[in-house]
Amino acid sequence: MIKVGIIGATGYAGAEIVRLIMGHPDAEVVWYGSRSYIDEKYSSIYGNFFKMVDAKCLDDNMDALAKEVDVIFTATPQGLCASLVNEEILSKVKIIDLSADFRLKDVSIYEKWYKIEHKAPEYIDEAVYGLCEINRDKIKNARLVANPGCYTTCSILTAYPLVKEELIDTTTLIVDALSGVSGAGRGAKVNNLYCEVNESCKPYGVTNHRHTPEIEEQLGYAAGKEILINFTPHLVPMNRGILATEYATLLPKKDGSLPTSEDIKAAYEKYYGNEEFIRILGDGVYPETRWVEGSNYVDIGFKIDERTGRIIMMGAIDNLVKGAAGQAVQNMNILFGLKEDTGLKIVPLFP
Amino acid sequence: MIKVGIIGATGYAGAEIVRLIMGHPDAEVVWYGSRSYIDEKYSSIYGNFFKMVDAKCLDDNMDALAKEVDVIFTATPQGLCASLVNEEILSKVKIIDLSADFRLKDVSIYEKWYKIEHKAPEYIDEAVYGLCEINRDKIKNARLVANPGCYTTCSILTAYPLVKEELIDTTTLIVDALSGVSGAGRGAKVNNLYCEVNESCKPYGVTNHRHTPEIEEQLGYAAGKEILINFTPHLVPMNRGILATEYATLLPKKDGSLPTSEDIKAAYEKYYGNEEFIRILGDGVYPETRWVEGSNYVDIGFKIDERTGRIIMMGAIDNLVKGAAGQAVQNMNILFGLKEDTGLKIVPLFP
Amino acid sequence: MIKVGIIGATGYAGAEIVRLIMGHPDAEVVWYGSRSYIDEKYSSIYGNFFKMVDAKCLDDNMDALAKEVDVIFTATPQGLCASLVNEEILSKVKIIDLSADFRLKDVSIYEKWYKIEHKAPEYIDEAVYGLCEINRDKIKNARLVANPGCYTTCSILTAYPLVKEELIDTTTLIVDALSGVSGAGRGAKVNNLYCEVNESCKPYGVTNHRHTPEIEEQLGYAAGKEILINFTPHLVPMNRGILATEYATLLPKKDGSLPTSEDIKAAYEKYYGNEEFIRILGDGVYPETRWVEGSNYVDIGFKIDERTGRIIMMGAIDNLVKGAAGQAVQNMNILFGLKEDTGLKIVPLFP
Amino acid sequence: MIKVGIIGATGYAGAEIVRLIMGHPDAEVVWYGSRSYIDEKYSSIYGNFFKMVDAKCLDDNMDALAKEVDVIFTATPQGLCASLVNEEILSKVKIIDLSADFRLKDVSIYEKWYKIEHKAPEYIDEAVYGLCEINRDKIKNARLVANPGCYTTCSILTAYPLVKEELIDTTTLIVDALSGVSGAGRGAKVNNLYCEVNESCKPYGVTNHRHTPEIEEQLGYAAGKEILINFTPHLVPMNRGILATEYATLLPKKDGSLPTSEDIKAAYEKYYGNEEFIRILGDGVYPETRWVEGSNYVDIGFKIDERTGRIIMMGAIDNLVKGAAGQAVQNMNILFGLKEDTGLKIVPLFP
Repeated sequence: MIKVGIIGATGYAGAEIVRLIMGHPDAEVVWYGSRSYIDEKYSSIYGNFFKMVDAKCLDDNMDALAKEVDVIFTATPQGLCASLVNEEILSKVKIIDLSADFRLKDVSIYEKWYKIEHKAPEYIDEAVYGLCEINRDKIKNARLVANPGCYTTCSILTAYPLVKEELIDTTTLIVDALSGVSGAGRGAKVNNLYCEVNESCKPYGVTNHRHTPEIEEQLGYAAGKEILINFTPHLVPMNRGILATEYATLLPKKDGSLPTSEDIKAAYEKYYGNEEFIRILGDGVYPETRWVEGSNYVDIGFKIDERTGRIIMMGAIDNLVKGAAGQAVQNMNILFGLKEDTGLKIVPLFP
Repeated sequence: MIKVGIIGATGYAGAEIVRLIMGHPDAEVVWYGSRSYIDEKYSSIYGNFFKMVDAKCLDDNMDALAKEVDVIFTATPQGLCASLVNEEILSKVKIIDLSADFRLKDVSIYEKWYKIEHKAPEYIDEAVYGLCEINRDKIKNARLVANPGCYTTCSILTAYPLVKEELIDTTTLIVDALSGVSGAGRGAKVNNLYCEVNESCKPYGVTNHRHTPEIEEQLGYAAGKEILINFTPHLVPMNRGILATEYATLLPKKDGSLPTSEDIKAAYEKYYGNEEFIRILGDGVYPETRWVEGSNYVDIGFKIDERTGRIIMMGAIDNLVKGAAGQAVQNMNILFGLKEDTGLKIVPLFP
Repeated sequence: MIKVGIIGATGYAGAEIVRLIMGHPDAEVVWYGSRSYIDEKYSSIYGNFFKMVDAKCLDDNMDALAKEVDVIFTATPQGLCASLVNEEILSKVKIIDLSADFRLKDVSIYEKWYKIEHKAPEYIDEAVYGLCEINRDKIKNARLVANPGCYTTCSILTAYPLVKEELIDTTTLIVDALSGVSGAGRGAKVNNLYCEVNESCKPYGVTNHRHTPEIEEQLGYAAGKEILINFTPHLVPMNRGILATEYATLLPKKDGSLPTSEDIKAAYEKYYGNEEFIRILGDGVYPETRWVEGSNYVDIGFKIDERTGRIIMMGAIDNLVKGAAGQAVQNMNILFGLKEDTGLKIVPLFP
Repeated sequence: MIKVGIIGATGYAGAEIVRLIMGHPDAEVVWYGSRSYIDEKYSSIYGNFFKMVDAKCLDDNMDALAKEVDVIFTATPQGLCASLVNEEILSKVKIIDLSADFRLKDVSIYEKWYKIEHKAPEYIDEAVYGLCEINRDKIKNARLVANPGCYTTCSILTAYPLVKEELIDTTTLIVDALSGVSGAGRGAKVNNLYCEVNESCKPYGVTNHRHTPEIEEQLGYAAGKEILINFTPHLVPMNRGILATEYATLLPKKDGSLPTSEDIKAAYEKYYGNEEFIRILGDGVYPETRWVEGSNYVDIGFKIDERTGRIIMMGAIDNLVKGAAGQAVQNMNILFGLKEDTGLKIVPLFP
């Protein structure tokens, strides 16, 4: 039985880790860390766990925690994990960090986009970017996994095979994305009140959302060169879900003709044909967030526009599962040599 | 492995049975019956099952079905199950009927409230009312289980211990209930369009909703006498969930004093203390539908008003789970001698 | 042109007063009071007013304000209006208080239910309860109007004619009500975040909600005796709207027979037949909050249950209009001798 | 008093025309045409009009109608207006067609995208495209106004000044748009049921939505050349609102430098500085649909991304007002020589 500790257990991502671990046959949560609710019963904060979780919240002491658990999930604001991690801790436990602290390899980009100093740059190189479908071999032996962002996971996986196979012109790539409100966290802010969000939608972080460099870095590896994109997130009135709609100009094939629908489908099949959590919907079938709610699935569809020479690619995930806690558990499974879908074979909840 | 057939697999309750059976270790769906979608892939109708269910829809032929499965769930409009059931079928398979056909023991009440002729009154006596927590001993040996209505399950379980213990005056009982929209089914009706339901709430079926006699009959058994209640359902803009708020005047105890909060809590503990799926929240803690979503739980709270001598009892369930498919699977578990929570240990999904 | 000052202009009720006054031909807002946003542009806080309101927020100085305006609306938390009002102010301006400070005639009940000391008990007697349809004659000459609560307005108006005409047994009266989330105000609280409220409903304030004594007092005047009721509010996921479902046992008429649907309808017609803002839907037609959204209407329907001898009465309003700002403007119209519907002839917005 | 007849008065756009005309000082609806509800009271279909509209629905007889009214609004499916219009009718009344029948100048494009034969191609040339801010001079003397589509209005107005001023490369223009559900109309379809739409978002009509050629044609006039764009609509769970997010590469100015934020703002001011219904939010302030709900406003914001050389432009409207009925009334005002904002000075409803 893998002993799990969570730092930040009372945020939405933290609570989702609890939900997933409760359905996991080989792991159990033994430490519900939450600075704000120390000594309060966890189920008094999240009533869904009433009668299921009897534990109280503990503090965020990573040193103490490292002695009691096999793996620590940090579901905390940026900066916290970097400020706590050290060699002794890493020698004892695996860390899966759901914050952005170890996602970007270039510390100056981190400090520019997040506007805070990085407290543990010495571990950036070692950290493995935990996008399971792309990096699973590296993840296996990692001590520190940087769990990807929610927008990032969806945006990268949707475009990755076409970038890798040089089917699209990466200088034209635009990612326009929609997110449910749980992505904004559980902090008490006027902007996230029911009446402010309901019956409305809005763009935010235009040209400067922090997931932009993360998408650019990872797709840059796939392309073998630097990539700059436009990424525009929007808030829409629903609890969960991310939908990314991506635009790019198709690159001609060697014979000068444009890639066909079959070429595109073949590329997706090549990279994802055996992936349990990626569902290729194909040409003209588009993802909808309702079909992935509560699950670890990534649904991907596309359409070529012959008039403009562009392809429109669309991906959908549940931001709290594949976009956060689900991928974190998938990373845990890889780290501990379990079948990757252990505890994650969840049917999406509809309606 | 229990082989499951579903008649009406493409309604919301039918699809929820599919979801639950997929997470059930000892059962599998082998017949997706749907008159409207014969030969269409099930996952083209419910995209959440894409890559999980490969089967196509079949017709509603109960005779054919009876030869292939161990249990049939009928998730169909009133009248269908009664028109299909016969001795040969009942000799081969168990039937769990999610419609109202066999819930009421008095056929004239059925025909008055449902305004259709009952096609198989000869099986009414044999049928067992499948409210698991109350009737599990009778369910064990049943051939035909009448799965309770969604409002009914919530309304009865919330009041049952207090009726049984003669703590409330049943002539004063009023049930005011709220339901999410999935309770209205998947039929294409203007009244259930998004824009008609969203940003509004409304009462309906005032004094004549069909779940009224079902509540009255079952609570009447508990009281040992006939009961007439007022039951007022309301539609509220959410997908899932039922919340019942019930009012009754407290009956004085033998010493003339009114029951206390401790008396009430003791009554709930007496009947539900060992029930896995009932969570007694207690005095002053009130159920919220968000805490049961996707699960088989019934959450119950209460408050005594000393000024008026009334008690207000409140219960919450997920209408598609404990109010339909979850209770149906719980009944299946009882019928087949499995642990009652098999496949039903589901953490409520929040947010 | 009536000069209007608002204290608390940046709450939802305050903003709704601004909206209504902008459509009012004989009034204009000249003071946008908001302690929290002094010197900020009003339209930067409520983007709907961009290009329509150019003013900045001012402080809550009631003395200064009294010199500049003809009427002051206080849309503030309990206690503020009572702490500011004095003879000099009342000699200069009319005050319409949207808080509870002057609604209850018995100061001990105020202090018990609101748990604060009343700072100006000397004005309680003078203050007129601003339920326009009932009290318009008294309102005409008032200096200080206590604008009713949202639940209260809906609950009282729905039952009033039947209480007045002695058609129902007031000892049996139960009010079960649903409210949209704007009733909770614009404060940043976790409980009112989108993801906490969406897809859920819950009771709250069971037996102790502060609108209870207000309903009891006013219906008590109608009955000519003290009344105790049960009032249970519920939060439902929508922006606006209150729906009250009320239960009472019918009183036999002099001839011993129970009141009929015609008797009930006649009672509503007697009191509301000429009321512009009350729409009597009648027997078997039930109010829905969508039909009153954005308007000052009160929709009322009912149904008699001959089986139980009870009547179920239902009323719907927009909590921010007839439940707050709309009624406040209606009171202003009465105070200044204008036609009562001036600026309030608003078609409900649907969908 | 302008006499107004509506064909298709019971659809969402038709009902919104009724709402707006009721607030219009110089017009009144005298014919509520609705093939589906002949002889039913209009207020029994739209309860918001109870006590406000006493009329019954009439049939769709345009010849009869032409004798009784001054202007006809056709809020009907494509093809109907074209099949009814003729010289005699046009000689008697003004027609404002909310369908697509006369929006596209090239009949072959109409027939290709709408897949129906055009029944009155002889009036295409005469018809004036009713985008008020661009075409008001031509509208003044029109007999037949083609009221623009909802997505179209928002998409064109957001990009128009930048196209006109040659600030963007029109070959790179991409429009990604979100719409509330009322845009799908009031037809009873499973896809538009509450539970299917709620808690989800989805793209649709990718590369082939019918508003595409309309946007291309109108922006083509502004550019003085043919334009091909990608337009991707998405359905999001809210009643009203359209948000368009548009991407284009900036064109260098004559001196070789890229346009600045000031250049962009100047272009918007040049074309819209005096427009009552267009609100230029400016650089870094983004539109949100909540701020325009119920009103005729178009809110526009933008952001330049110097890293990629692109501009992101964003516009928001209420799809039923500026996207349909509001613009139709604005066109009526122009046709009849009224002030353009008559009856349309509506404060957006929030929350």
